[in-house]
Amino acid sequence: MTADSATIDSADSSFRSVVAATGEPVGAAFATHGPDDVAAACASAEDAFDTYRASDRETRARFLERIGEEIVAIGDDLIVAAMRESGLPRARLEGERGRTVGQLKLFAGVVRSGAWLGLRIDPAMPERQPLPRPDLRLRMIPLGPVAVFGASNFPLAFSTAGGDTASALAAGCPVVVKGHPAHPQTGALVADAIRRAVAACGLPAGVFSHLVGPGNALGTALVTDPRIAAVGFTGSRGGGLALLALAQARAVPIPVYAEMSSINPVVLLPAALKARGAALGTAFVGSLTMGAGQFCTNPGLVLAIDGEGLDAFVTAASHAVVEADAGLMLTTGIHAAYQHGVDALAGRPEVETVARGKAGNGITRGQAAFFSTTAAAFLAEKALGHEVFGASSILVKCQDEAELARVIAGLEGQLTATLHMDADDEPAAARLLPMLERRVGRILANGWPTGVEVAHAMVHGGPYPATSDARTTSVGSLAIDRFLRPVSYQNLAQGVLPPELRDAAAQDGVPCLRDGTPSLD
Amino acid sequence: MTADSATIDSADSSFRSVVAATGEPVGAAFATHGPDDVAAACASAEDAFDTYRASDRETRARFLERIGEEIVAIGDDLIVAAMRESGLPRARLEGERGRTVGQLKLFAGVVRSGAWLGLRIDPAMPERQPLPRPDLRLRMIPLGPVAVFGASNFPLAFSTAGGDTASALAAGCPVVVKGHPAHPQTGALVADAIRRAVAACGLPAGVFSHLVGPGNALGTALVTDPRIAAVGFTGSRGGGLALLALAQARAVPIPVYAEMSSINPVVLLPAALKARGAALGTAFVGSLTMGAGQFCTNPGLVLAIDGEGLDAFVTAASHAVVEADAGLMLTTGIHAAYQHGVDALAGRPEVETVARGKAGNGITRGQAAFFSTTAAAFLAEKALGHEVFGASSILVKCQDEAELARVIAGLEGQLTATLHMDADDEPAAARLLPMLERRVGRILANGWPTGVEVAHAMVHGGPYPATSDARTTSVGSLAIDRFLRPVSYQNLAQGVLPPELRDAAAQDGVPCLRDGTPSLD
Repeated sequence: MTADSATIDSADSSFRSVVAATGEPVGAAFATHGPDDVAAACASAEDAFDTYRASDRETRARFLERIGEEIVAIGDDLIVAAMRESGLPRARLEGERGRTVGQLKLFAGVVRSGAWLGLRIDPAMPERQPLPRPDLRLRMIPLGPVAVFGASNFPLAFSTAGGDTASALAAGCPVVVKGHPAHPQTGALVADAIRRAVAACGLPAGVFSHLVGPGNALGTALVTDPRIAAVGFTGSRGGGLALLALAQARAVPIPVYAEMSSINPVVLLPAALKARGAALGTAFVGSLTMGAGQFCTNPGLVLAIDGEGLDAFVTAASHAVVEADAGLMLTTGIHAAYQHGVDALAGRPEVETVARGKAGNGITRGQAAFFSTTAAAFLAEKALGHEVFGASSILVKCQDEAELARVIAGLEGQLTATLHMDADDEPAAARLLPMLERRVGRILANGWPTGVEVAHAMVHGGPYPATSDARTTSVGSLAIDRFLRPVSYQNLAQGVLPPELRDAAAQDGVPCLRDGTPSLD
Repeated sequence: MTADSATIDSADSSFRSVVAATGEPVGAAFATHGPDDVAAACASAEDAFDTYRASDRETRARFLERIGEEIVAIGDDLIVAAMRESGLPRARLEGERGRTVGQLKLFAGVVRSGAWLGLRIDPAMPERQPLPRPDLRLRMIPLGPVAVFGASNFPLAFSTAGGDTASALAAGCPVVVKGHPAHPQTGALVADAIRRAVAACGLPAGVFSHLVGPGNALGTALVTDPRIAAVGFTGSRGGGLALLALAQARAVPIPVYAEMSSINPVVLLPAALKARGAALGTAFVGSLTMGAGQFCTNPGLVLAIDGEGLDAFVTAASHAVVEADAGLMLTTGIHAAYQHGVDALAGRPEVETVARGKAGNGITRGQAAFFSTTAAAFLAEKALGHEVFGASSILVKCQDEAELARVIAGLEGQLTATLHMDADDEPAAARLLPMLERRVGRILANGWPTGVEVAHAMVHGGPYPATSDARTTSVGSLAIDRFLRPVSYQNLAQGVLPPELRDAAAQDGVPCLRDGTPSLD
């Protein structure tokens, strides 16, 4: 998902935007940023850090809202650029713009609430025996400048002003974005909007920087810059693990929050399958082929016990796949990887190709694919469980619940697991739940994993290798915690304490744990 | 801090307890646990995990309290064993036992409060346009079995039933302790107490296992066992970094919480120095030599601007150091490392040996050391800032606040920073605070860093290399968060939801973020 998606001029390393549908370059060339640009952006972010993190909550919240307003103010030029560069349709991108702005507003609300400060106050006990207790006060502080690597599959909501940027800025961290080369024009428009918001809110310019270029050198320089304190990434497993290795090898290692890969098992429990196998099959393909299957939460694995309703599911799903138009994929590189993955599965003797979608015209059209195999085969060959990014999924037929449990137990970490279930399936669901909890970040019932709500109770994360750090989420308000760490202040004079920990600040509605008891004043 | 502290029989790898004061082996031999023992302990922990994490909060809280009761019930045998093995005096170890029991009680209270569950509920909005919002509920779940490596310098409070064990058990994680070979008898007594508590509370035996042996093979096998989900460690930088490397190289990497090294800068600000230089000097040496200087938070670095009061500080500190008895150190290995570190500093031409304490009789007596150098020399030579574990400290004289700031800016991550200050020093303290915050986990004023309160607002942690993960603490109630991760449940039936997320469970006083608003019902 890197250089292949941009057209590079070998003379000066400049590169051009590429039309997703045709692979043709279009528009003016973008200059590739080099090591000096990385150093300058990181120095600027470092310079801005103390000023930015000291900004009051209202200023920071208004800044986030202003970014959203500036993005909306770009108007249709942004949608047109994103359509051209990503191949995604207008309605989807307009929706994604709404999601991006909504996400910024959510974090503005989070910033205002002050809950992220994690305030704790243990008052002094000067008379305590055998020793007095000191006055102890704790708050969370931002880690420092954050490097954000945008994703190609959400050119707005997971890219330049996406969830990683919004949550890092909310935490008080300056952000240096490594723009995705698959949508340089879209990224440039959004970066300009953020810069306008920075200026309008009177914040230092170093709060936000935007670096672009194809290839890996830029990202390597960014992650290894000593001023960078954390990394947010959404993309391939190879890319995420490369950044993780760089971050761990630094003189001072830093956290990497990489959302990497997932096949998102969908479990069809017997009663649900019996009651509505055909309807589930049709709905499944709707989720599978949405956006050409280019979602982190795409249902790439279906698990079912062979029994009543499974034939109906397979028949309906096959019919829907056969009818599915070939989706326009994001880049020629992603399309080629998809083709490679599908061909590899189709070529395996233990895998049956149940149905293929319509072939499309155009070099990035992805033909949907639906495979089937047995649990025994799936358990024997790890490769059957690898992500094929795009509209490809494999049904694993199990003989009974025990075999289903063995398949689940053998899964790698995933973003999601889905249960299709009726009331009669509740005992089986309850038995499977502890296993699923340990392997995924989100468990959903009677829906499809491809809708990821930006909310307080959302987890878009999960055990390795779905992400590099299962302890958090990259979507939803909890994502702010990734960029914070605790500091304790002992017996500090009121005038030296951070403002939110002073006695006089205690009445502004920010949650605080006082001597171990939650309070809201 | 490993093999040197135990006497190993090369025939059968058994080892014996060693008297700290003499280096002589005593008592019966302990069998060294091997790879099969590690595998059995980890399998047992894994088997116990789902049962233990499903235990209700009251059962788990009572279990923690029962561990404390069982430790107290051991009686004086525990204190006598710990005195013999650690060389620490009775009063200190009785106090440490109280701290250990208090820590278990603190976590019992934390478990009961349920705040660690991090409950979040975003109710469904079926009528929302353009799409309905699903019902989303979030809780934190425990990571899985935790490996704990005890510290030699707190044979009770940071060892077998110490802070890491208590917080992991509180989180719902089974614990496999790698007992410290410097106090095998103490560790065995405490491990038996925990096992009695496990049985008394009707919990599966795998909730707690205790492995012992000198050398590194045991720890390596433990950290690389695929069933281990996280590691807690307190000890040397070398040991911590070795465990971190092992954990990162696993097929599935796991978090390592290693508390490693710190020199804990103490800043003497001008007005305070002028007002009470001599008193500060005397008090400083009290903190420096307490417990033979064997505290993670020992004040190994003093920073001051050359001016009025500094001579009085140095004179008083020198006098106190000269009068200081040589402290009994924990092991011959720790003593040898201390001697090596002190000799290296004393041999440097740019370092002045200001004072040495009394020489002691006995092979583990550590002679206190107080050095002095200039800011220019300290900035030029990184080795002057390395931890010398024991009662050694170096004064760095700065010419002005700008030079003081440069010294602080050049420091590695630390557990603590201390400011000695008067009202007139507040402007300088406020200027230094943002720099200190980024380099330490706890900032204290007009005290000494060697007292670490077990409290809600405590941070015993800090940026690398003070710890391997600055995002948390190893002391205080916040330590439980290290062993938890979020899971989101979408549209799950009431009967399948975890009990604490069901509608009927909403009234038991556990904090919950409802649609983004904190509530306590």
